[in-house]
Amino acid sequence: MVDRFNNRKIINDPIYGFIRVPSSLIYKIIDHPFFQRLRRIKQTGFTSLVYPGANHTRFQHSLGAMDLMRRAISALRNKGYEITEEEEHAALIAILLHDIGHGPFSHSLEHSIVKDVSHEELSILFMKRINKEFDGELDLAIQIFEGTYKKKFLHQLVSSQLDMDRLDYLKRDSFYTGVSEGVVSVDRIISMLEVVNDELAVEQKGIYNIENFIVARRLMYWQVYLHKTVIVSETLLINILLRARELVHNGVEVWATPALKYFLKKHYNKEDFQDLSVLTMFSQLDDYDVMISIKQWLNHPDKILSMLADNIINRKLPAIILQKDHFKIDEIIKLRKRASQLYDISEEEVDYIINYDHTSNLAYNPELGRINILFRDGHVEDVSNAADQLNISVLSHSVVKHFLIYPKELRD
Amino acid sequence: MVDRFNNRKIINDPIYGFIRVPSSLIYKIIDHPFFQRLRRIKQTGFTSLVYPGANHTRFQHSLGAMDLMRRAISALRNKGYEITEEEEHAALIAILLHDIGHGPFSHSLEHSIVKDVSHEELSILFMKRINKEFDGELDLAIQIFEGTYKKKFLHQLVSSQLDMDRLDYLKRDSFYTGVSEGVVSVDRIISMLEVVNDELAVEQKGIYNIENFIVARRLMYWQVYLHKTVIVSETLLINILLRARELVHNGVEVWATPALKYFLKKHYNKEDFQDLSVLTMFSQLDDYDVMISIKQWLNHPDKILSMLADNIINRKLPAIILQKDHFKIDEIIKLRKRASQLYDISEEEVDYIINYDHTSNLAYNPELGRINILFRDGHVEDVSNAADQLNISVLSHSVVKHFLIYPKELRD
Amino acid sequence: MVDRFNNRKIINDPIYGFIRVPSSLIYKIIDHPFFQRLRRIKQTGFTSLVYPGANHTRFQHSLGAMDLMRRAISALRNKGYEITEEEEHAALIAILLHDIGHGPFSHSLEHSIVKDVSHEELSILFMKRINKEFDGELDLAIQIFEGTYKKKFLHQLVSSQLDMDRLDYLKRDSFYTGVSEGVVSVDRIISMLEVVNDELAVEQKGIYNIENFIVARRLMYWQVYLHKTVIVSETLLINILLRARELVHNGVEVWATPALKYFLKKHYNKEDFQDLSVLTMFSQLDDYDVMISIKQWLNHPDKILSMLADNIINRKLPAIILQKDHFKIDEIIKLRKRASQLYDISEEEVDYIINYDHTSNLAYNPELGRINILFRDGHVEDVSNAADQLNISVLSHSVVKHFLIYPKELRD
Amino acid sequence: MVDRFNNRKIINDPIYGFIRVPSSLIYKIIDHPFFQRLRRIKQTGFTSLVYPGANHTRFQHSLGAMDLMRRAISALRNKGYEITEEEEHAALIAILLHDIGHGPFSHSLEHSIVKDVSHEELSILFMKRINKEFDGELDLAIQIFEGTYKKKFLHQLVSSQLDMDRLDYLKRDSFYTGVSEGVVSVDRIISMLEVVNDELAVEQKGIYNIENFIVARRLMYWQVYLHKTVIVSETLLINILLRARELVHNGVEVWATPALKYFLKKHYNKEDFQDLSVLTMFSQLDDYDVMISIKQWLNHPDKILSMLADNIINRKLPAIILQKDHFKIDEIIKLRKRASQLYDISEEEVDYIINYDHTSNLAYNPELGRINILFRDGHVEDVSNAADQLNISVLSHSVVKHFLIYPKELRD
Repeated sequence: MVDRFNNRKIINDPIYGFIRVPSSLIYKIIDHPFFQRLRRIKQTGFTSLVYPGANHTRFQHSLGAMDLMRRAISALRNKGYEITEEEEHAALIAILLHDIGHGPFSHSLEHSIVKDVSHEELSILFMKRINKEFDGELDLAIQIFEGTYKKKFLHQLVSSQLDMDRLDYLKRDSFYTGVSEGVVSVDRIISMLEVVNDELAVEQKGIYNIENFIVARRLMYWQVYLHKTVIVSETLLINILLRARELVHNGVEVWATPALKYFLKKHYNKEDFQDLSVLTMFSQLDDYDVMISIKQWLNHPDKILSMLADNIINRKLPAIILQKDHFKIDEIIKLRKRASQLYDISEEEVDYIINYDHTSNLAYNPELGRINILFRDGHVEDVSNAADQLNISVLSHSVVKHFLIYPKELRD
Repeated sequence: MVDRFNNRKIINDPIYGFIRVPSSLIYKIIDHPFFQRLRRIKQTGFTSLVYPGANHTRFQHSLGAMDLMRRAISALRNKGYEITEEEEHAALIAILLHDIGHGPFSHSLEHSIVKDVSHEELSILFMKRINKEFDGELDLAIQIFEGTYKKKFLHQLVSSQLDMDRLDYLKRDSFYTGVSEGVVSVDRIISMLEVVNDELAVEQKGIYNIENFIVARRLMYWQVYLHKTVIVSETLLINILLRARELVHNGVEVWATPALKYFLKKHYNKEDFQDLSVLTMFSQLDDYDVMISIKQWLNHPDKILSMLADNIINRKLPAIILQKDHFKIDEIIKLRKRASQLYDISEEEVDYIINYDHTSNLAYNPELGRINILFRDGHVEDVSNAADQLNISVLSHSVVKHFLIYPKELRD
Repeated sequence: MVDRFNNRKIINDPIYGFIRVPSSLIYKIIDHPFFQRLRRIKQTGFTSLVYPGANHTRFQHSLGAMDLMRRAISALRNKGYEITEEEEHAALIAILLHDIGHGPFSHSLEHSIVKDVSHEELSILFMKRINKEFDGELDLAIQIFEGTYKKKFLHQLVSSQLDMDRLDYLKRDSFYTGVSEGVVSVDRIISMLEVVNDELAVEQKGIYNIENFIVARRLMYWQVYLHKTVIVSETLLINILLRARELVHNGVEVWATPALKYFLKKHYNKEDFQDLSVLTMFSQLDDYDVMISIKQWLNHPDKILSMLADNIINRKLPAIILQKDHFKIDEIIKLRKRASQLYDISEEEVDYIINYDHTSNLAYNPELGRINILFRDGHVEDVSNAADQLNISVLSHSVVKHFLIYPKELRD
Repeated sequence: MVDRFNNRKIINDPIYGFIRVPSSLIYKIIDHPFFQRLRRIKQTGFTSLVYPGANHTRFQHSLGAMDLMRRAISALRNKGYEITEEEEHAALIAILLHDIGHGPFSHSLEHSIVKDVSHEELSILFMKRINKEFDGELDLAIQIFEGTYKKKFLHQLVSSQLDMDRLDYLKRDSFYTGVSEGVVSVDRIISMLEVVNDELAVEQKGIYNIENFIVARRLMYWQVYLHKTVIVSETLLINILLRARELVHNGVEVWATPALKYFLKKHYNKEDFQDLSVLTMFSQLDDYDVMISIKQWLNHPDKILSMLADNIINRKLPAIILQKDHFKIDEIIKLRKRASQLYDISEEEVDYIINYDHTSNLAYNPELGRINILFRDGHVEDVSNAADQLNISVLSHSVVKHFLIYPKELRD
């Protein structure tokens, strides 16, 4: 039985007002160091370099998503769909912990020093570890999270194209960045949820809201998540961490916080993370470790490391060109040569300061599961077929952008 | 010279905070009975039947649009485009008065008792009349409004696909209905305005905002402006006014307020409105005349008129089916027959209670003028070509929906 | 048993997002013509002359207060206080109907043509009438409304110094006027409600919120409800109605809508309102009747009536002086003489255009019931004793302001 | 002459929408490492432990205050007060830099390792340093900041009981914590500013807004700034830093980031900070240094240091009692004894885990300069005399609260 305890624990949230902590178990999970660390991990990493208001953390987002889950379940129950108290409780825990595997600046970390484990895999490792501490009380939550529980729609509320995660982060990131177009009518979408054949669906009249949701998400991608400055900063961080690791491997002294040092010194693969000591060390890594170490590297004798550190700490960002087309290979070669000469560094080292790559965004990806529209006559259709005009199929083609990053000094 | 007087007149607005009245002439225009009447005309007519918060008036909208104009001009000046103080003042007046020709429930009126004059034409008539009273001080404003002034972009700020009118009404209607997806980032769009070859354009990086603006507008159309209940109510009002006029013409006594009676008794065409007495009479017609007269008709001996009045006053709305396809003609004929029998009315009279028609919406209509995107290299392109993915061309095809309205009692 | 029916009826509200209609009975009550008329009665009467955004209606406010009641009951239940489903349902109905007795421009009406019956009394009459139609289903709601039900705190949620009525109207009026200081943290206050000895109380830590609530309410009084322009307009309306009634009584023809005519012709006292036909006639009176009639009086041959009508319709408001001290009687006499001469009217008639009176506000009136603070040690104290500093007792003394209204032409 | 450059630099702010960077000099100041560091210093320190949304930084606040200054100056100019472009520019810089002297967790730092220099003094040191780099371009800004410039009201806009600093931080902290009652009508207050005898004043009709501002500020004090958890955390941090310093002085190895180590090792007084190297070192100290060092101390062999670190990092906060009265001395002695035994620490060391002290708040302190109300007849009065009822004098008495902090294990 779910211990609803006094039900008086309430957390303020600038967006939703108040978030009630629904049980004493959940209260204890929130209090767990694994969860408390999310207070020290920003939701949108370097985005605050462009949008100074965006300092919100994964801690807030996780609580917010939990509150949306509560509302979604209440809305579904009001429509007559059966969800037991245990299932609700487990779904709340599953969404609360969906991001617990995130490290600091996730994207950059996953491209540099924590390459072999995705944050989803880490989330499961953390959940299992907490589950052990709480004598199996998270069993059902883990099943829902992993999608093995019979009521599939509960998993979809946690993770799908229209899950509580996305609803919360769009609304929250939009709120904190001040990019008002990202606003999604969370209440309206939740009020239109249905379950058909054990899968989530949306009432027909919600179709324009879903379109708007997909378009808003796309806008947030290009205007926030893949903003030039964000791409530059994330690339910079990858370069910094790779350079630091290289130096460490070469025996050069590199000051770092213990947790960061641990992951600079040695590469850990998926298996290694099964080891509690590795997981625990990872749990001690947060934004503070990364930023403070880089701050020290401002004065590191390695000129590449110190230059990159200066770029990010004092916001002296390199130039970036973002375009639809590929860059011409000979222009890049020329640029690299000039860099090599100007900074007196080797060809390999140029990799740390000149980057060409691409990024892409797919507003609606039906391959990752569909958004179903439930029509009045009872039939169900994928939103990209159902929408009357805004050919959502148009939105389900990937947009690719190529980018080239290089020091401003190299500008002609 | 523009008399900026003490500049202390400030009007509270729930959306923008404070709106400053920029000159004593504008203060006098706002005080004019022609303008004050806009206080008694709701911006979105019967929308409040669906969204009870939507009681805002054309008065507020006009002030709001004026404030956006002030900001747009300030943004353009900051970028170095020259706009004289006189031009600014005239543009402010032009946008302030852009809706002054609206009668109550404009759409329904234009389909029943005021058929020959559009609200745009009436706006010009009102402006010219006010201009006479103020000894020609509105000359330049009228030129801008009519598009005859040399700086074409000033006219576009008043009336185009991206004018201050649209920016304000989308934001305002979204605010008052509570349909949050209609939110448009007015500040951002304004900050991205440019002028190229004397035409308005938008900086390249604003492209996603423009897409969002177009999609938001479409959503507002289907969710608010063309909401089923709104279509039903507007059709009801057309029927009511037509029936009342028919009765009057047949010599039946029909109570009505003087202003409404005037337009029920006789049809006035475009020429007639040149006559000050007709225009003045029109200026005395507002929401109150229409609603109060219908309220009296609740007890009118004509059963059709009283039934229709009951439908609207006590919100006993008829049924509506809205669909992509045409309705089958023989089903309509059957329905009409049953209505004729049930209510014991003639075939012609059935027209007042069964309506089939269609409505359509075009999110972006390039034929009405384009939204230009200014690229970094200086060239300009229409947004429907410029958008990388959300084929705006998709949005520039009209969506047509057919509807059938009939008394609920006729449901099988 | 409460029929929760499909629970899918949802009403948009710009402030709370969505308001769910909690039962089919309540749905029917909302649909009742007595309730639908509240759509045509503005919550804050002439306030829109100062704050053009304030066009919200008693309809919205009633729904909003109902939603707060739902939340308050949920919060109390979460704390372990027992409230049955029937009691909840009845409390929701009681608050929904708490304002149903309001006529248009209540304050002015109660000082002119509907003098003997308060709106509270009318609310009860309407509730009993609806109760009859619904075969006694409102019995419990009426008991709660009247305060005769055993659980006294339910009545206090409907009507007390900290009831859902006040919480909603402060928040709503603040929202629509744009006077942001009126903002009250409705969620926080509701989350801090307790019940002690069958009376509402507020947790100790909510003490600053209560102080803020009282101060915000006071601010709203002077800045909105008793704003000079509002006082002037309400006085004007009283004068207009009194003048019109006098003319009617003297046999002068005065155009008016039937419902208004009914109350101009004859005075009805408390007993009369027991008569269904009087109550029904009252139910047909709304803002539209008043405004449209005044609009016609612009051209009435009686110069006093037409002047007053012009004052209000075209916003040519008389002057007002608002001050702490009494006005000097001989100055008023002089002013009245000049008015009598200037307009060539009798001494008695001057009463219609020169008014001196006073208004007062009491931010916290402990005589109308107290706001109790529940301390951690279990004892309860009145907030004016409990507050540590902002001597609320200071706020519980009435503030009186005297005002003098007179035509601007009489200014020296 | 102020170089307004292209004026296209715009910064998003969730509260104000867009903040324009008004000149290229200001752009360069914002880019300066001294200013960029404010990105890494939270505005409200440990408040996020209670209000998880409160992660906003002094960087945002400084920009916000600058924007309010721009609006205030524009409002004053509109009323005819002369402010030259140079003065405006200087005032913008002065307010932008008013907080630049803040270190991380200012309050705690000033009570532990940076005791002799206030953040105001540091702000001036930083400003003078930047002024040197920019060849004296900040001369006027510094005069305004220090209050030596002839137009005294410009200084008051930067620093007084009603300065742009307070207006912004109340609004901002209220926004980010979600404590809606802290909301202050910034626009309204600014629109009511006047200058009388070279001093700021507020129009008479703004009196209720000022009262509300003072009450809101008081509420924010008790609900946010002096929230129990905040007091506990700040005290904890003081204890931690003092303990760490003691250990360092005793030769115990204590890991710390270089900047923090610098200030743990040696005490620097006011004179020392004149030295650029000390100031520079201070400029390298931010929230990250403090938090990361504490995180490492979780595993420090000193049991006091590690216990305190655990308290803050994993949010295992000690108990706190906050009350109006003094604590009884013998109870404290008993408590200390038990702590000494339980943790096996010396009497002196108990100081690190048991603290009794007091905190106080004065909502309106006329000794720090008054808030003047300008009456219609031209005379000026202090708001505490002018307010008609809410005896602001009541609010100008200090409220003192005593607190006792001790480990939860010591609870009986």
